[in-house]
Amino acid sequence: MTTLTIRSSSNDYQVNIGAGLRHQLSDLLKNNYSKVLVITDSSVAPLYLKDVVAAFGSDTVVSSEIVPAGEQSKSVICYSGLLDRCLEDQLDRSSLIIALGGGVIGDLAGFVAATYLRGIDFLQMPTTILAHDSSVGGKVAINHDKGKNLIGSFYSPVQVIYDTETITTLSIQEVRSGYGEVVKHALLSDSKWFQHLMDTSLESIEEDDLIDHLTSGIRVKAQIVESDERETGVRKHLNLGHTLAHALEAEFGYGEVTHGEAVAIGMLFAMKISQVKLAAKLPYSQYQKWLDDNNYPLHLLARIDVEATLKRMKLDKKTLENSIHYVLLNEVGSPTVIKLTDQELIQSLNDFVQKEGGRIVDQRS
Amino acid sequence: MTTLTIRSSSNDYQVNIGAGLRHQLSDLLKNNYSKVLVITDSSVAPLYLKDVVAAFGSDTVVSSEIVPAGEQSKSVICYSGLLDRCLEDQLDRSSLIIALGGGVIGDLAGFVAATYLRGIDFLQMPTTILAHDSSVGGKVAINHDKGKNLIGSFYSPVQVIYDTETITTLSIQEVRSGYGEVVKHALLSDSKWFQHLMDTSLESIEEDDLIDHLTSGIRVKAQIVESDERETGVRKHLNLGHTLAHALEAEFGYGEVTHGEAVAIGMLFAMKISQVKLAAKLPYSQYQKWLDDNNYPLHLLARIDVEATLKRMKLDKKTLENSIHYVLLNEVGSPTVIKLTDQELIQSLNDFVQKEGGRIVDQRS
Repeated sequence: MTTLTIRSSSNDYQVNIGAGLRHQLSDLLKNNYSKVLVITDSSVAPLYLKDVVAAFGSDTVVSSEIVPAGEQSKSVICYSGLLDRCLEDQLDRSSLIIALGGGVIGDLAGFVAATYLRGIDFLQMPTTILAHDSSVGGKVAINHDKGKNLIGSFYSPVQVIYDTETITTLSIQEVRSGYGEVVKHALLSDSKWFQHLMDTSLESIEEDDLIDHLTSGIRVKAQIVESDERETGVRKHLNLGHTLAHALEAEFGYGEVTHGEAVAIGMLFAMKISQVKLAAKLPYSQYQKWLDDNNYPLHLLARIDVEATLKRMKLDKKTLENSIHYVLLNEVGSPTVIKLTDQELIQSLNDFVQKEGGRIVDQRS
Repeated sequence: MTTLTIRSSSNDYQVNIGAGLRHQLSDLLKNNYSKVLVITDSSVAPLYLKDVVAAFGSDTVVSSEIVPAGEQSKSVICYSGLLDRCLEDQLDRSSLIIALGGGVIGDLAGFVAATYLRGIDFLQMPTTILAHDSSVGGKVAINHDKGKNLIGSFYSPVQVIYDTETITTLSIQEVRSGYGEVVKHALLSDSKWFQHLMDTSLESIEEDDLIDHLTSGIRVKAQIVESDERETGVRKHLNLGHTLAHALEAEFGYGEVTHGEAVAIGMLFAMKISQVKLAAKLPYSQYQKWLDDNNYPLHLLARIDVEATLKRMKLDKKTLENSIHYVLLNEVGSPTVIKLTDQELIQSLNDFVQKEGGRIVDQRS
């Protein structure tokens, strides 16, 4: 088992990473809880919920709530229903909420824990590669019709327990999604690691490599959020690829493209702007080939409406002002934030869509 | 103008107290904001909203949202509607929400500010005496059908601006309510001040006295919350009178009795238990006479159902465990927390209701 410690302004917490940890919950937990509510989704529940519940002794009352799998569960209605459940179960300030699942469950259950009785303990048990990102850093949120994560708060878990057995059953699309954020952490920090990733085929990752990648990703994320918890400075770098990604996800209804896939495409776009605006030397073609080889859905670009996409990018919560602050790269490992005008973005986006969207559509026709 | 500084874990903030401060907002504000949303209610809006909006220069876009006056606005539906409004107005992370009103508005607008885009600045402008309590300490919340303030968080304002002109128009019931919390702050801290209050008739308070009482109340509150922001220790003392108060408010539908009136009655009950359990020497009869003289609605006690009230007390968020932690007084100025069993509470409550409820009903018949 690997253990990392994350420092936050409210508390320090440990991230435990290892195989089979879900069976060792009662040993790993730092506190005793008389009542535990496990929040999970309809995909994860059949696989792991029973193990998690069974890991507690008879002196703990464990209940569970299963929400539909998918982004649509991050709604005000679902949030409100979960609060009802907390009250029905009479959870009190010494109870624990466990988020068993991917980023959706972590965000949703975390926001419930953050706001029930003004905050009770919550523990993250990520079951996807993607959630290596969201489970660290204390951001919890639900969605509004107008955009993702517009309602939320900063609230750190008391612990993150990452059972790597739960990520061996992921579909290739989920692996692809997870590696969007893994590649981001490499692009933000380490050219050598990025090169290593470009030699990795997602269809055939070794388990040891996967665990290494996760651990490295969490280290990068932790270092950034520790130095800027409230996102007033360097934490903005974590939005690399995300401004376009959120617009793509919204455009395609949070369904046709996964979050990490959208981020992966967004980072290719950020590389393109970096080349134009900063004359940055970047491995654009190499990265674009890796995205192709691993079947990232670049072809969706052919279907976007540039004006509508820009409008969505401007609604993104980091960019509600009139100009967009965009995360670019001086080189791999060296991010920076640049203000872009609407005009610059429209032109870059048009060029990008024409090049990448057009190319792929041609190939597939 | 009197200025107090409150220290919280996230930020220090000032409380400015003085006559006519609503006209000096743009001078008093620590930051410049390009967008401001004023949240207020249907009682306060006709009196002061225009002044607040007019206090900003032409370089600030000021919008406002008026919710119905009363506790029922602290609902999930109203909260959700206000978030919609924030998005319609395109408030961003450098915008400000102003809570112009009493405790309901402060709690509601504060929870909106705490959770919109994971937290934007908010400023409290209390317009009641009661809100001297709630505007300091960073508790924000909305209600659930099952009880008050069950959904919320800890979120400090950036500033509190207390225009004492706005409290000169209060009804006598609102003065009575406000003095419930003023008396509480005296009971928690200072026997001499408590005696001074017992010589005060609420029908004829001098303005200078009122301002002194508010300022002293805020000082006591600030001292307690600074030493225990998250309510793990001494902050619990602020719940003096509140366990019964919340039950009374719920029992009578948040309407027939105001919060402060209920707290005032709850404190009389706490004194009674303190005499029995701790053999405390307390000015019970003097306080009871003051409540009578100032028309606190002790007669409601004749109408409560003791079993139902106990059930409600146990649902209170501080008491979801099986036994109730009750704030009692060793003497005036010396609070303590004692665990009481259901049986002890039922007996105390029966005795209290019989004595106080019976007495008043007899007098009025």
